[in-house]
Amino acid sequence: MNIQTKTGGTQNSVGDHINIGVVTVSDRASKGEYLDEGGPKLIEFFSEIMESHWTTHSMIIPDEQNQIEKALIYLTDEIKCSLVITTGGTGPAIRDVTPDATIAIAERELPGFGELMRTISLRYVPTAILSRQMGVIRGHSLIINLPGQPKAIRETIDEIFSAIPYCIDLIGGPYIETKKESVTVFRPKKAKRSK
Amino acid sequence: MNIQTKTGGTQNSVGDHINIGVVTVSDRASKGEYLDEGGPKLIEFFSEIMESHWTTHSMIIPDEQNQIEKALIYLTDEIKCSLVITTGGTGPAIRDVTPDATIAIAERELPGFGELMRTISLRYVPTAILSRQMGVIRGHSLIINLPGQPKAIRETIDEIFSAIPYCIDLIGGPYIETKKESVTVFRPKKAKRSK
Amino acid sequence: MNIQTKTGGTQNSVGDHINIGVVTVSDRASKGEYLDEGGPKLIEFFSEIMESHWTTHSMIIPDEQNQIEKALIYLTDEIKCSLVITTGGTGPAIRDVTPDATIAIAERELPGFGELMRTISLRYVPTAILSRQMGVIRGHSLIINLPGQPKAIRETIDEIFSAIPYCIDLIGGPYIETKKESVTVFRPKKAKRSK
Repeated sequence: MNIQTKTGGTQNSVGDHINIGVVTVSDRASKGEYLDEGGPKLIEFFSEIMESHWTTHSMIIPDEQNQIEKALIYLTDEIKCSLVITTGGTGPAIRDVTPDATIAIAERELPGFGELMRTISLRYVPTAILSRQMGVIRGHSLIINLPGQPKAIRETIDEIFSAIPYCIDLIGGPYIETKKESVTVFRPKKAKRSK
Repeated sequence: MNIQTKTGGTQNSVGDHINIGVVTVSDRASKGEYLDEGGPKLIEFFSEIMESHWTTHSMIIPDEQNQIEKALIYLTDEIKCSLVITTGGTGPAIRDVTPDATIAIAERELPGFGELMRTISLRYVPTAILSRQMGVIRGHSLIINLPGQPKAIRETIDEIFSAIPYCIDLIGGPYIETKKESVTVFRPKKAKRSK
Repeated sequence: MNIQTKTGGTQNSVGDHINIGVVTVSDRASKGEYLDEGGPKLIEFFSEIMESHWTTHSMIIPDEQNQIEKALIYLTDEIKCSLVITTGGTGPAIRDVTPDATIAIAERELPGFGELMRTISLRYVPTAILSRQMGVIRGHSLIINLPGQPKAIRETIDEIFSAIPYCIDLIGGPYIETKKESVTVFRPKKAKRSK
């Protein structure tokens, strides 16, 4: 698999290092007919908000359920990504199979992610109702499906990210910290590390 | 099966012709003990809003899962309805089996429909939380469960309809248009047909 | 199983008597390392709001799926609880298995409960998105998962309770009434008993 990595954040942070998977699902982008904008948008997001030391592992794959499943398993089980974000392939069209691949390799669904992401996107477009995006857990990894549109990606992840670090704590992943001025992370008091 | 058809819209429209299934699920209405109000309410809705040429295919059937499944399969696979709306049988009572029949014959669920329809109805009655209504895809057809109450039908469909034409586009159905002054249909710019 | 009962309400009420199960799911509370606050909070709630004659049947059990399933089956099938409320064990952590036990013994899910409870809790904490709590039906019983935090319990049940008595009517349970000044119960006019 063709994986690109990028690193950022500070190793001196109170937080731990985190591996993050970024999977762009698109027939056209995987054939090079179309420039992937979703993946770079996500890496830009992590560069902006992460205080902890991070490494992203990015892939572009076609809308094939089997390949998406393999990519998700590889990123979670082999690369030990505590967080994997997919972008694209969440709609009702026959080629849209990202959520089907996600649930197929999941151990548990966290239905609140799909519900909240649709609620957020509904503020912008009524067709947000058509999205089947979800959040699931596999082992010590949280996997979240985001929409394919770069604009919709930021609208969504900016708002849901505040719950993600504590989720990763609870499933046995690294303790991650964001830059104070960017996303406000929520953790109960007793779950906070002191500096 | 006893099916009634009705036709409307204009054949000169930019949009294509659409077959629409309307399934009233009610023990009492199917025995003639009660006048079906839900089915006519839906046909009235399509008469009001549709610009494209349309044909509705209406049935009244009892709250029997087997019969509902057969009706849905017949309307989607044989009559080629691109949209099927059911009314009634979505509650928690033992005889309420419309969602069970719907998911049984579905290929995919679109969870946003159930979520949004409950959110809409919750503005009117707290017991909207009890509804199990959903939206699913079977082949090139979108199937949506609406409540049984005529008032609740309009409250719901008026608000969700704006996302339906684009959904039908995405699953390979006809391009449908509504009257400008009624429901505002949402489609991304590149998905719009020019006049 | 160690069950504690408590009784309240008035036998002269228009409503019927109801058995209510209260299941605290917590490893630490079940070992006595921690005082159960969730169970007592729920009994306090029923004492405050119920007009009808009621009996609660309370248990404290560890976060073991098998034991939670047994408790739910016992309370619904043997004790004939028309309503069972669990508290705790709804998060994403590996030991959180209350929703898994609940769906395993359920006949039907009522997805509106999970959706609305998460929406309510999201007003207070962004991590409400991580809750997998749900509402289901087993026979003539409604089972609802509440969070473990005493504060979150009241925030949630105060708001969802208005739909619960009518749900219990619809699944063939007792007719229950609340004190007018506490929770306002919603029933359609034709479903109301006259005094």
